[in-house]
Amino acid sequence: MSILTLTTDFGLKDHSVAAVKGAILSELENAQIIDISHLISPFHITEAAFVIKNAYHNFPKGSIHIIGVDSEFTPENRHLAISLDGHYFIAANNGILSLLALNIKPEEIVEINIHDRVETNFTVLDVFVKVAAHIARGGNLSVIGKRIDDIKQITNISPIINQDSSQMIAHVIYIDNFGNVITNVQKKEFLDLAKGRKFKIKARSNVFNKIHDSYSGVIDFSTPKEERIVEDGRQLALFNASDFLELAIYKSNPLTVGGASSLFGLKLRDTITINFEK
Amino acid sequence: MSILTLTTDFGLKDHSVAAVKGAILSELENAQIIDISHLISPFHITEAAFVIKNAYHNFPKGSIHIIGVDSEFTPENRHLAISLDGHYFIAANNGILSLLALNIKPEEIVEINIHDRVETNFTVLDVFVKVAAHIARGGNLSVIGKRIDDIKQITNISPIINQDSSQMIAHVIYIDNFGNVITNVQKKEFLDLAKGRKFKIKARSNVFNKIHDSYSGVIDFSTPKEERIVEDGRQLALFNASDFLELAIYKSNPLTVGGASSLFGLKLRDTITINFEK
Amino acid sequence: MSILTLTTDFGLKDHSVAAVKGAILSELENAQIIDISHLISPFHITEAAFVIKNAYHNFPKGSIHIIGVDSEFTPENRHLAISLDGHYFIAANNGILSLLALNIKPEEIVEINIHDRVETNFTVLDVFVKVAAHIARGGNLSVIGKRIDDIKQITNISPIINQDSSQMIAHVIYIDNFGNVITNVQKKEFLDLAKGRKFKIKARSNVFNKIHDSYSGVIDFSTPKEERIVEDGRQLALFNASDFLELAIYKSNPLTVGGASSLFGLKLRDTITINFEK
Repeated sequence: MSILTLTTDFGLKDHSVAAVKGAILSELENAQIIDISHLISPFHITEAAFVIKNAYHNFPKGSIHIIGVDSEFTPENRHLAISLDGHYFIAANNGILSLLALNIKPEEIVEINIHDRVETNFTVLDVFVKVAAHIARGGNLSVIGKRIDDIKQITNISPIINQDSSQMIAHVIYIDNFGNVITNVQKKEFLDLAKGRKFKIKARSNVFNKIHDSYSGVIDFSTPKEERIVEDGRQLALFNASDFLELAIYKSNPLTVGGASSLFGLKLRDTITINFEK
Repeated sequence: MSILTLTTDFGLKDHSVAAVKGAILSELENAQIIDISHLISPFHITEAAFVIKNAYHNFPKGSIHIIGVDSEFTPENRHLAISLDGHYFIAANNGILSLLALNIKPEEIVEINIHDRVETNFTVLDVFVKVAAHIARGGNLSVIGKRIDDIKQITNISPIINQDSSQMIAHVIYIDNFGNVITNVQKKEFLDLAKGRKFKIKARSNVFNKIHDSYSGVIDFSTPKEERIVEDGRQLALFNASDFLELAIYKSNPLTVGGASSLFGLKLRDTITINFEK
Repeated sequence: MSILTLTTDFGLKDHSVAAVKGAILSELENAQIIDISHLISPFHITEAAFVIKNAYHNFPKGSIHIIGVDSEFTPENRHLAISLDGHYFIAANNGILSLLALNIKPEEIVEINIHDRVETNFTVLDVFVKVAAHIARGGNLSVIGKRIDDIKQITNISPIINQDSSQMIAHVIYIDNFGNVITNVQKKEFLDLAKGRKFKIKARSNVFNKIHDSYSGVIDFSTPKEERIVEDGRQLALFNASDFLELAIYKSNPLTVGGASSLFGLKLRDTITINFEK
């Protein structure tokens, strides 16, 4: 049974997501189709890149990931199929896959060239599904596209490190469902640079000098519950489950007390500065 | 493996959708259940009709489509099972299926009459699921209902054409996830009436005299990217993937720059006038 | 084929839900994974408890229900696996399962103790999925946890009945997708107390002295449609499909005319008083 995932900006009200699923089931009767997200902000490549990067590796090797964000086929927006880390990805060549390819070299990249064989003005539905079905049936990428070496990059995806390695300029790449603020700093990169030095993370007027391993890391469970000063110490920096640096509020609720994003006054693309002790 | 789809106005927070799915799996262990939409506006028959019409034909023949919108069983709201275009549909007789039946004659229509055999006050859960399971097991419609000839119509579903065929009065039937405005004009009907004549589409103060085949049709890719006057020419009329006339903005984002709906000042049921050259 | 359901407060935009599904499919290739809800308000235990209680029993016996709400593993928030009513539930010991256990005694309760064998800071993904896979493969609960007798209770989950049984003080536990107001009064409990007496339900300035069996119960279908005074009589109390007392508006639409919640001025945790005739 083939596993296919879908990541789009189609939303959950329109018929579009179901149309894609129907087309998949018409090709692959027993497909296991899993939604990754259909609430990517319209045409938001960084958001799509972040979500697919954090989701895909939980699926079994051989899974096929269709990404329908900014995917209209034009002279300037070609279509890709790539294999990477034992998974397959089908998306436009608009930078969405560059975050994946940052840490792991793709095994194969092809520019899809079967468009003349499929009549359509809804590319995700028709071309992407045909390519996915081809892969699911064990077909080679080289049959549906011509091999290329490079894919388009998202600019500024990695933090900038200054010359003497004393400072890292990062930025916010995602705000999650709890209002927590996720930066583009990856754990390994941070630890390699820090080499055990002390540091200060500054995000607007907020300063953090410790990075926790879990949300509850900020709570001192040795103090009896009644005696804890709960208002204090609830904001924290942590490496999250995806190993990105996150600025969070313990048990934050964006609907009531407000999430980290609003409490810290941080939004997408805002700058975070990390200074290391010399 | 049976394919069953669900289209409801139940929303995605409540337990209702899962309750229906649980009931289906209790009847049909290996059912492939696909959500079409659960975000239909409450009791909005036209919206449900539009979404199901655009989604269903992508699924394999033999699929069973359950529609839970305005489906409470009352003396004035009977339940239907119909077969049409090789698919099965289960819904209330409230007009939802009339948009489907506009272009394609149903193969069979029955008014469901098994309600006395199912104790319930949640019709979609119990009666619709029983009927779907019956169909999935290969049962005939005539066993679960009595054959009827006609179904209730939605009024004003088709555009009005004047006597000398010089004008078509259409209206907005759906606003999609990108804020694009979809009219009730179908491509074939338009082309049959236009017979190659020039035309003007007026929607409030907006005028279109060309209908594109894709969103990017409005972009002149022969001009280098830097030299294009991007502010111009981004609004367009097109026949969309479902062959309805759509008024759109190329890469519109309702969350930031605003979608076609807000930029054009158009909302559901607003009028669009198309004048043909004599 | 194992059926696993998911109930979380992860939302539908982030990668988290898909990450859990990927992990499940990596353990159980043919799992049937069904979403119950991912829109539980962040950390809202009562809401989660209400949704899972109303959904689970529609699924086949043997289904495994994973609940990822307030589930971070801490010294004060242990993890449970329980079997109850022929179903399995995996959740934190934070009260979520107490609404289920109110009417039905659990067959077995264990406190999960495999955390040292799973490296993680995202408990739902790793520990809950491992436990679910263990159960799906036919494993005993006693292998993955130590048996305990009691689970943490949600306070004030049941209505309070006064000494002479003349009054019931209930409260609002859920507002549904249509804006209808659901109370914590269960049908059986109400009928047992009422013993056929007349009653008055008061919710702010609204008074009900009849409980219907369906939404349309408030409509007099014997009067011709044109002659009905539709403005009148549309607000009603009913025992809903889940056998909870609900205050509703017939065909209410929270997006336009407003749902029961806004029209009655009722919100979560508000008090409803029921007085019985002496």
